Amino acid sequence: MPAESNGLAYARSNRARFVAELIEFVRFASVSAGPKHARDISNCAAWLAAQLRRVGLDRVQVLPTRGAPIVYADWLHAPGRPTVLIYGHYDVQPADPISEWQSPPFEPVVRGDNLFGRGAADDKGQMFTHVKAAECLLRTSGLLPVNIKCLFEGEEEIGSTNLPDFVQRHSKTLKADVAVLSDTRMLAADRPVITESLRGALSLELELRGPAHDLHSGNFGGCVHNPLQVLSGIIARLHDRDGRLTIPGFYDRVRSMTPEQRAYMAKVGPSDAEILSDAGAERGWGERGYSLYERSTVRPALSVNGISGGYQGPGVKAVIPARASAKLNFRLVPDQNPHEIDQLFRAYVRRISPLTVRLAIRTELATQPAMVDRRHPGVTAAVEAYKRGFGNAPVFLRSGGSIPVVNLFQKILAIPTVLMGFALPDDRLHAPNEKFHLPNFFNGIATSMHFLTELARIGLDAFPDHRDTPLSLCVHNGEAAR
Amino acid sequence: MPAESNGLAYARSNRARFVAELIEFVRFASVSAGPKHARDISNCAAWLAAQLRRVGLDRVQVLPTRGAPIVYADWLHAPGRPTVLIYGHYDVQPADPISEWQSPPFEPVVRGDNLFGRGAADDKGQMFTHVKAAECLLRTSGLLPVNIKCLFEGEEEIGSTNLPDFVQRHSKTLKADVAVLSDTRMLAADRPVITESLRGALSLELELRGPAHDLHSGNFGGCVHNPLQVLSGIIARLHDRDGRLTIPGFYDRVRSMTPEQRAYMAKVGPSDAEILSDAGAERGWGERGYSLYERSTVRPALSVNGISGGYQGPGVKAVIPARASAKLNFRLVPDQNPHEIDQLFRAYVRRISPLTVRLAIRTELATQPAMVDRRHPGVTAAVEAYKRGFGNAPVFLRSGGSIPVVNLFQKILAIPTVLMGFALPDDRLHAPNEKFHLPNFFNGIATSMHFLTELARIGLDAFPDHRDTPLSLCVHNGEAAR
Repeated sequence: MPAESNGLAYARSNRARFVAELIEFVRFASVSAGPKHARDISNCAAWLAAQLRRVGLDRVQVLPTRGAPIVYADWLHAPGRPTVLIYGHYDVQPADPISEWQSPPFEPVVRGDNLFGRGAADDKGQMFTHVKAAECLLRTSGLLPVNIKCLFEGEEEIGSTNLPDFVQRHSKTLKADVAVLSDTRMLAADRPVITESLRGALSLELELRGPAHDLHSGNFGGCVHNPLQVLSGIIARLHDRDGRLTIPGFYDRVRSMTPEQRAYMAKVGPSDAEILSDAGAERGWGERGYSLYERSTVRPALSVNGISGGYQGPGVKAVIPARASAKLNFRLVPDQNPHEIDQLFRAYVRRISPLTVRLAIRTELATQPAMVDRRHPGVTAAVEAYKRGFGNAPVFLRSGGSIPVVNLFQKILAIPTVLMGFALPDDRLHAPNEKFHLPNFFNGIATSMHFLTELARIGLDAFPDHRDTPLSLCVHNGEAAR
Repeated sequence: MPAESNGLAYARSNRARFVAELIEFVRFASVSAGPKHARDISNCAAWLAAQLRRVGLDRVQVLPTRGAPIVYADWLHAPGRPTVLIYGHYDVQPADPISEWQSPPFEPVVRGDNLFGRGAADDKGQMFTHVKAAECLLRTSGLLPVNIKCLFEGEEEIGSTNLPDFVQRHSKTLKADVAVLSDTRMLAADRPVITESLRGALSLELELRGPAHDLHSGNFGGCVHNPLQVLSGIIARLHDRDGRLTIPGFYDRVRSMTPEQRAYMAKVGPSDAEILSDAGAERGWGERGYSLYERSTVRPALSVNGISGGYQGPGVKAVIPARASAKLNFRLVPDQNPHEIDQLFRAYVRRISPLTVRLAIRTELATQPAMVDRRHPGVTAAVEAYKRGFGNAPVFLRSGGSIPVVNLFQKILAIPTVLMGFALPDDRLHAPNEKFHLPNFFNGIATSMHFLTELARIGLDAFPDHRDTPLSLCVHNGEAAR
C-alpha cells in the first residue's frame, strides 16, 4: 500500500510540526463548564476548523448550537467504500486546583516524552491523531482510502447537552458505517486496548421530608422520626451482606459471562491489586463471587454520590432536619434497561420507606449499557491497525464507565462506535498535570492511517446492512429512559 | 408592695420603648458558631453592657474570654436578703437556611403579636425580661428587693466553651443563693411552666475514610466500599425496630419513672397530638411503650444532626467520596453518665464498622442530665411570681433539652437554677422564622419583678445551707464528661 507508506513517511518527517500544532490546540482554555471560557471555546472551534481546511477536508463548518459550536468536516470521494464517523471533543475539564500544576495548564510544554497541559490527552491529543492521519494521507496521495466525516463537539465534559438534538437533526449528513472515538486508555505504551463494553448509568435523587421545619433535637429527639436516620436506613437496605443489590428483580436481566469470557477478563484485565492501587484503597468490596475488575465492569453497581441534610458546619447544632437527600448512581450492564431499573427502584424504596416521611424520587440521567461486537469489521480493522501502529495486538477490555455518545450513535445512526484509545493510565485525565505521551501521539497517527486503510481493504460488503439488523452491530440497545 | 406596683405601671407605659430596644438587641447577628460573626458578637456585648449601665446596675463589665466576651453586672445594696444570679446568653444560632425566612433573620420585625428574628426568643427576648424588670424597679423606687448578679454569656449555642473556666475563676464574685434562667418554654401564653428536669447531652462526630481520594463511580462503582454507604449502615444499626437504641448497656442506668410521676406527666404534659402539631409532623416515632412527651424528656434518645459527604450540588457528579461524616447527638436522662455512654458508643461502633473504612470519633460536647427540687425557695418564689405575672400557677414539666449551665452552677456554685421560661411552643427556636410572643415579653417582665419581690418576702433564712446538702437541691450531678 504505497499511499499508506508515503503517509507514514510524511508523518515521521513532520513530527515536530505536529507537536507544535497540538501545543497550539491545547493552548486554548476551552473549558466547557460555566460561561467563563465561552470565547476560548469559540476561538478553539475556529482554530480547529482552520486546521481541518488546511488538512484538505471538505465542507468544513463551525455549526452553532445552544451551547458550544460543533465543528464538522468530511471527505467523501471514495464511492463504494465504507464511511467512518470520527467523533472527538475539543472542550476540556476545568483546570482547578491550578496550584497543583507543575506548569500552567494552558501553557503546554514538552517535558521528556510527554506534552503537559489540560486537554493534552482528553481529548485534544487523541482526536488530533485522526486529523493528522488524514493530513498525511491527503498530502502524499491526494486521497483517503475511505470516506470520513468528522464530528467534534465542545460540550462533552458537561454531558454533551446539545449533541443529541444535533445528531438527530443531521442524521442524514452524519450517516456512516462505523464511528471511531479515541478517548479511552491503553494499559501501557505498548499494550493497546479496545474497550468493548460500557456500563449504562442511572442517576437519581432521593429526597425525604419529615417534620415541617427543622426541630431542636433536645426538645424532639426520640419522638419524631429523623429524615437523615430514615435515609440511612433506606440506603443501608439497598445492599445485602454479600454486596448485592436487594431491589427485587434487579438482577433479572443481567447477562451472565461465559467461563471463556471470564477467563479472558482474568487474563487481560487488571488484577485486584492493580485496581486497589489505582483507587488508593486498602481493601476491595462488592458482590461476592466476582473479581474487582468484574464487579466494576460486567456486574451492576449502585454508588451513593452524596448525602445532604442537617447541619454540616463546624461544632454542634442540635437539629432534627426537616429534609434529607441522597444522590444515587446506578451502573447497569446488558441487558438491564435503565427505565425498568428506575421503576424497580422506586417500587422497592416506596415499599421500605416508613410512613413517617414523605418520599420524592427524581431521575436525573439514564444511559443504556453498550457493547461492541468483536466481529464487527470496524473492530477487526482496529485490531489490525493497532498491531501495525503499536507493534502489538490490542486486548479487549470492559469499562465500568458510560459514554453517552456511543448510545447516541447506536440509537440515531444505528452504528457501533469503535473505542480506540491512545491515553495511558498515568495521563491524569481530569486531574492536575494532565499529559499526553508523545510516542502514543505518533503511533496513534500511524494507527489511524492503518485503520482507514484496513477498512478500505475489508470493503463495504463486509459491513452488515444496519437498516435490517441493527442489533447485530451493537448488541444492546433500547429507548433512552427518562 | 408599692415599689412593685410602681414598677408594673412603669413597665406598662414603656412597652413600646422596650420592644424597640429588644429589636436593637436582636439586630446583632451574634452567631457564635464559626468565626464569621466575631465582630457582631463583640458589638452585641458592648450594646448589652451599655443597656445594663443605663438600667442602673453597678460594676457593668465586658469580660474577655478565649471566645466571646461575658457581660457581667450586679446590684448588691440589699444586705441580709437573698442574692439571685440571673444568667442568659446573647449569642444566637446560625440563621441558615436563610431562604426559608419570611423576613431577614437579623432585621427583626413585629408582625401581629410577635417579634420575628433569630434570637428573638432564644435567648435575647427572654433574658431581656429580667433586664427590663430591674429597670422598672430601679427607675421607680431606686432599689431592688434582693441582690442580683447578671451573667450573660456569648457562647451558649456552641456549648458554653469558656464559661466553666470563667465561673470557676470568679466563683466568689458569682456567689448567690439561687440562679434563674429564662430560656425554656411555656405550654401556652396563659400556661406557665417551671422546667424541673433536663436531659443530658452527648454530641459526637463520626468520620469514615475510605479510598485515598474521590473516585469515579463509573470506574470503581461496585468494587470499593463507599464511606457514605458504610456510614448509612452504621446509623441504621443504632436503632432497633422498636425505636430503642441498640448500643449494649445503653439503658442500664436509666431511672424508671414511678406510676405517680407518669400520671402527673400525663396530666399536665403535652399530648401526643400537641407535640406532633408543634413538630409539624404527621406521625410520632420512637421507643415503644412511652408517650411522645416521655420519649422526648425522661427517655434517652439519639438524633442525627447532619450527614456530610460526596457531591451535594445541582445535577450529577459520579463520585465515590473518600470520606463521609455524621454529627450525632445523644440526649441522656438520670442516671446515665455521658462519659460512660461515650465509651459504650465507641465500643459498639468499632465493633459494627467494616474493615474497608477507617473510623474516627470525636466527642464535641458532654452534659449531665439535671433535676431541680420543687421545694426549693427559688422554685416556690417562681410559682408565686408566675401566678401574678401570667394569672395562672405554673405546672412542672420536664424538658428534653440540655442546659449545661445548670450543671455548672450546681457543681461550682452549689446552687440550683430556676428555669422560668417565657417562650412558646411555636416560637421556632433554632429554626427559620424564630419569634418571641410580645405579651409573654411584657408578662415576663412583670413575672421577673414578682420573682425578686417574692424572694425578698421569703427571706434568706428559708434557703438551705447549700454547703452541707448540695444533693437536696439538684438531684443529679456528677463530673462533667469529656
